[in-house]
Amino acid sequence: MVLKNFLEGGYPGKLYAVNPNVPEVLGVKCAKSVADIAGPVDCAVIAIPALAVVDVLEQCGKKGIKAAVVISGGFGEVGNVELEGRLVEAASKHGMAVIGPNCMGVINPEKRVDSVFLPIYKLGRPHVGEISFISQSGAVGGCIVDLAARAGVGMSKFVSYGNASVVSECDLLEYLGNDLSTKIIVCYLEGVKDGKRFLQVASKITRKKPIVAIKAGKSKLGAQAAKSHTGSLAGSAMAYAAAFAQSRITEAETLDELFDFAKIFSQPICCANRVAVITNGGGNGVLAADAIEQHSLDLAKFSDSSLAALKELLPPYANARNPLDLIGDADSARFERAIRICLDDRGVDALVVNVLFQTAAIDTRIVSVLVKANGEKKKPIIVIATGGEYTEMHRRILESYGIPTYSSPSSGVKALSKFLQYCDHYKKFNKTACLI
Amino acid sequence: MVLKNFLEGGYPGKLYAVNPNVPEVLGVKCAKSVADIAGPVDCAVIAIPALAVVDVLEQCGKKGIKAAVVISGGFGEVGNVELEGRLVEAASKHGMAVIGPNCMGVINPEKRVDSVFLPIYKLGRPHVGEISFISQSGAVGGCIVDLAARAGVGMSKFVSYGNASVVSECDLLEYLGNDLSTKIIVCYLEGVKDGKRFLQVASKITRKKPIVAIKAGKSKLGAQAAKSHTGSLAGSAMAYAAAFAQSRITEAETLDELFDFAKIFSQPICCANRVAVITNGGGNGVLAADAIEQHSLDLAKFSDSSLAALKELLPPYANARNPLDLIGDADSARFERAIRICLDDRGVDALVVNVLFQTAAIDTRIVSVLVKANGEKKKPIIVIATGGEYTEMHRRILESYGIPTYSSPSSGVKALSKFLQYCDHYKKFNKTACLI
Repeated sequence: MVLKNFLEGGYPGKLYAVNPNVPEVLGVKCAKSVADIAGPVDCAVIAIPALAVVDVLEQCGKKGIKAAVVISGGFGEVGNVELEGRLVEAASKHGMAVIGPNCMGVINPEKRVDSVFLPIYKLGRPHVGEISFISQSGAVGGCIVDLAARAGVGMSKFVSYGNASVVSECDLLEYLGNDLSTKIIVCYLEGVKDGKRFLQVASKITRKKPIVAIKAGKSKLGAQAAKSHTGSLAGSAMAYAAAFAQSRITEAETLDELFDFAKIFSQPICCANRVAVITNGGGNGVLAADAIEQHSLDLAKFSDSSLAALKELLPPYANARNPLDLIGDADSARFERAIRICLDDRGVDALVVNVLFQTAAIDTRIVSVLVKANGEKKKPIIVIATGGEYTEMHRRILESYGIPTYSSPSSGVKALSKFLQYCDHYKKFNKTACLI
Repeated sequence: MVLKNFLEGGYPGKLYAVNPNVPEVLGVKCAKSVADIAGPVDCAVIAIPALAVVDVLEQCGKKGIKAAVVISGGFGEVGNVELEGRLVEAASKHGMAVIGPNCMGVINPEKRVDSVFLPIYKLGRPHVGEISFISQSGAVGGCIVDLAARAGVGMSKFVSYGNASVVSECDLLEYLGNDLSTKIIVCYLEGVKDGKRFLQVASKITRKKPIVAIKAGKSKLGAQAAKSHTGSLAGSAMAYAAAFAQSRITEAETLDELFDFAKIFSQPICCANRVAVITNGGGNGVLAADAIEQHSLDLAKFSDSSLAALKELLPPYANARNPLDLIGDADSARFERAIRICLDDRGVDALVVNVLFQTAAIDTRIVSVLVKANGEKKKPIIVIATGGEYTEMHRRILESYGIPTYSSPSSGVKALSKFLQYCDHYKKFNKTACLI
C-alpha cells in the first residue's frame, strides 16, 4: 500500500522496493536487501515485523541512509521497551532521523511524499497548503487529514510520529517552526516527553506562527486510556492548560475545534474585536450575535456613512444594523456591496458572513464575491454556511481559496475569538500593518 | 416554486392554482380566484403581496377552506401590526388555522406536502422519519431540514411558523405531542408568546416524548437582533434556562447540538450510565474517555466472562479494557464479536462505537454489523466516525437505518449524556423494559 500510494501520488524521485521473497511489487523490481540497492537513498520506509526492524535499520545505516519512517508497531507501546531501546541505539549509532515506530508516517503533498499505508479512496489526501499537522495517534491523524481533504483545506506536512523514540514532538515543532511552507502548526498530543523543552520551543514558535493543539487524556479516565494506548503519562489537565496558556498555544477541546481553529489562521492579523455580521437569514444573525457576546467579542457599530450606504442598498423593510440582515431575497450583488461597506468601515475589524445557500437568490456567484473580498487581505473574513449538498459544495470551493468556513454561527465565532486572541499576542512581537 | 415542489414531490391529492393574470402555471390550469375553484379544498398556500393577503384569506373562508399557510412577509415583523391584526380577525371569523405569516410553511414527507418555496436542489428534503421540527426562523429551519436530508436523517413534520399570529408554537407543540408519527420534537425559538402555557404544554409532552430546543437571542446582543428579526421579546437567558430545565426540555446551545441531540432519541430507553467504548483507533478511545468523564457518565467495567471472551477475541498485544481498542487491523467480524460481548454484558448500559473508516480492514460490511446490533433495540448504540468522503458515505447509510452518528467523540458522548438524562425523567412516568 505504501508503494502504491507513492506511485499513484506521482512521487517524482526514484523508488526502490526491498523484499527478499518476491521479484517485484506493482511493477517495481525488488532488491533482496537494502545493501543490494544500486543508487543512493534519502529515506527508508520500514513496514516489516517488529523483530526484524532493528536489523534492517542497521543495514540502512551502513548504506548511508540518514532518515527512516518505521511504521511497524510492537515496541514500547506493547511493553517491548528493550526492543525499542535497541532501535534508538541503532539510529543513534548511524546518526539517523527516525519517525516512529508505531506510526503512519509522513505526507508532504508538495513533494508528493506519502508513506501512509491507508488507501486514498478511504483516507483522502489534502492539496498543497499552509497547515502542518503532527499527531501522536495515527488514527486521529488520519481522521483530520481525511477531513481536510474532503473540506478542501490544504496541508503542508503531516507527521504521524507514534512512539517518538528518536524524533520527538519537540524536534518536529522546531522543524515546522523554521519551515517556510508551514504557516500554522496543529498538534494532537497524548503526552509530552520533555515538558520544559516543549514549553520553550512552543513559546518561541508562537511569537511568529500559531500552534493549535488538542491534549487527549486530560481526564482521569482518558489518562488511563492514553497510558494503555501510547504508553504516555498524561500529566494533569491543569498543568497542560497552564503550559498551553503560557506558551500561547491555542487549545482545542474537541477534534472539531482542532480543525475549526486551524483554518482561521490563514486570515490577516486583526486590529481589534469589533465584528460585523452579514447574513441573508435573520435567525442566523441572532445566533451569531449570541455567540459574539458569549465569546467576549463586540458587535461593530456602523459609521454614519456606512449606515447611509446601507439604507440605500437595503429594501425599505430591512434594518441597517449589525447583525446586518440582507433579507431572504438578497443576491450576490447585495452581499458584495454590504461586504464592501463593512471592509471600508474603520469601525469594523472582522467580518462574519453567514450565507444561507438555500434561498432562490443565492447561486455560485457568491463564491466570486467572497473570494474577491478575501483576496484583499484587508480584514479577517469567515463564512458560516449550514446545510446539505449544495451548501457543502460551495463550502469546499471557498475553502480551496483559503476562506475558512463553518457549519454554525457558534463554531465560526468561537474560532474567530481564538484567532483574535492570538492576534493580540502576535502583535507584541511583530510589526503588523493593521489596515484600519 | 411552491407548485413545482408539490408536483415534483409527488403530492397525491388534487392541486389547484389560483392566479388572475395567467391561464396556467407548470401545466396546471389557473382559476381566476379562490371562488372559481371547482372542488372542495383542504388547505390554501398563500404567496402574494402582503396587502392582498387578508382579502384572499376572506375568500378562502367563504369557500370553506379551514387551513392556510401564509408565506407572505410584510406584517408585524416590519411594523405592520394593524395588517397582521386584520389577518388574525379574518382567520378567527372563519375558524381557520393559519400558519405564518412570514414563514416557509410546512413539509410532511409522508403525505408529500411541501409548501416550502426553496428549490429541492438547494434545500434537500428528508425522507420519512420520526423527528418533527418547528422553527420560528425560516432560514434556520431550512438549514436544519437541509442538514437532515444530506445526513440521511428522516423527518415526520417540519413547520416554519414565522409570526405565529394564529397558530402558535404552543398549538404546534400540542399537535405534535399527540401525533403518533412524531417520536421526537425539535424547536428553534426566538421568543415564546405565552410562557405559562408553553411550560405546561412542554412539561406534559416530555413525560412521553422528548423535546429538544434551541433558544436564540439569549444574550443581550442576540435579544436585540431577535427583536429586529421576528419582533420577539427574547426574555432573559436565565428565565429560559430555568423554564427548559423545569419542563425537561433538552436544551441545545448550538445548531450542531440541536441536530446532534435530536438524532439520539430514536435509541431505546437506557437503565444507567455505564458506557462501553469500542474502537479501532486508540486515540479516539482516549478522547471518548475524556468526554465520558466530562459529561459525568461512567466507563463500564467489563464482567469476568466478557474479559475472558475479549481476551480470546483480541490479538495478544491488545488490552481487554474499556475503552476497548480493537487495534487498527480490526475487521467487521472483530467489531461484531466485541459488540455482541458488550450487548450481553449486564454491566454495560450503552455502546459508543467509534469506527475509524480509514483503515484497510474496515469496509462496508461494518454497516451490516451495526444495523443488526441496533436492530435488537437492546441498548442505545451511537456511532462516531470522523473523516472524509468514504466515512461520510457510510455515516449516511447508518443514519438512514436510524443509527445516530457523530463526527467526533466529544459531540457523540455529549448527545448520549443528554439522552441518558432524559431517560431518567422518562422512566418516572412510563413503564420501561430495561433489558439488563
